[in-house]
Amino acid sequence: MAKTRQGLVIVNTGDGKGKTTAALGMMLRAWGRGMRVCMLQFIKHEKANYGEIKAARRLGLEITPIGDGFTWSSKDPDETVARAVYGWEQAQKRILGGGCDILVLDEFTYPLHFGWLDVDEIIAWLRENKPSTLHLVVTGRYAPQALIEYADLVTEMKEIKHPYNDGLQAQPGVEF
Amino acid sequence: MAKTRQGLVIVNTGDGKGKTTAALGMMLRAWGRGMRVCMLQFIKHEKANYGEIKAARRLGLEITPIGDGFTWSSKDPDETVARAVYGWEQAQKRILGGGCDILVLDEFTYPLHFGWLDVDEIIAWLRENKPSTLHLVVTGRYAPQALIEYADLVTEMKEIKHPYNDGLQAQPGVEF
Repeated sequence: MAKTRQGLVIVNTGDGKGKTTAALGMMLRAWGRGMRVCMLQFIKHEKANYGEIKAARRLGLEITPIGDGFTWSSKDPDETVARAVYGWEQAQKRILGGGCDILVLDEFTYPLHFGWLDVDEIIAWLRENKPSTLHLVVTGRYAPQALIEYADLVTEMKEIKHPYNDGLQAQPGVEF
Repeated sequence: MAKTRQGLVIVNTGDGKGKTTAALGMMLRAWGRGMRVCMLQFIKHEKANYGEIKAARRLGLEITPIGDGFTWSSKDPDETVARAVYGWEQAQKRILGGGCDILVLDEFTYPLHFGWLDVDEIIAWLRENKPSTLHLVVTGRYAPQALIEYADLVTEMKEIKHPYNDGLQAQPGVEF
């Protein structure tokens, strides 16, 4: 029975659609079971994720854009890096705080891929500190190999066909 | 502006996780925008999709397992085929009825792939009858080529790493 309560580390990566969307679906499913679900969004989306933020508010899910609490200080050499560091601190607080049964780090692969955060340090910290029952979900392209090795479940979303190639615009409600 | 209201045909296929889950995420996003979302489930899941059915009830989303309304008649030569035909009739009613802004046909690729339904007839019917503003989402492995050609947006979910290989069991709330 202990194994049934094992928290999974899940990575949704690849160039296709559905990485964040599948994480939202997991959140909805877990919410249906009365679990506490949280999402930290590391990258600002152009359209501000209008649909999911509105849905989250209606459901009482936590979806927090990292930009929200970040304040720029002149001591920070690079705002992009400083924002990623701030985001990771927020993630650590939620991982240690015990308030989430599922924590989604949305587009967290980018700070790792671009080297704004040190992936080996982060994996070492997670191995040490992640509560064994917490489900941790990471989304984004270019998932680093060290993250894939650490994860239990990795899915690549591959683009087979995309409507923008035919001149269609992104559809509200479906895509954002 | 007309293009912005174009209904998309979306296919989530492949051997990986996240096909149905991403469809659920789309439903959540659309629900957040006040759209009417419906899902017909063509294949019975072992665990009865407990999390999503519970969430759907709490949200007032329609998620209907095809098994629900199907009644076996001795005239049906093959129950599997008869159930698929019945499911497709239910889908047609919803497509024509106008009560859904997004309709998800969950695991609808299987009746097409296994030939319980004729994919060419179905695509021809959809080309003729699908309202242009309706978003139609089809999930499942083995999406037939004719469906991929008809679709606007096709994503393949590819399994890169799966925890069952390490002996972990499926996790309630996250996977079902």
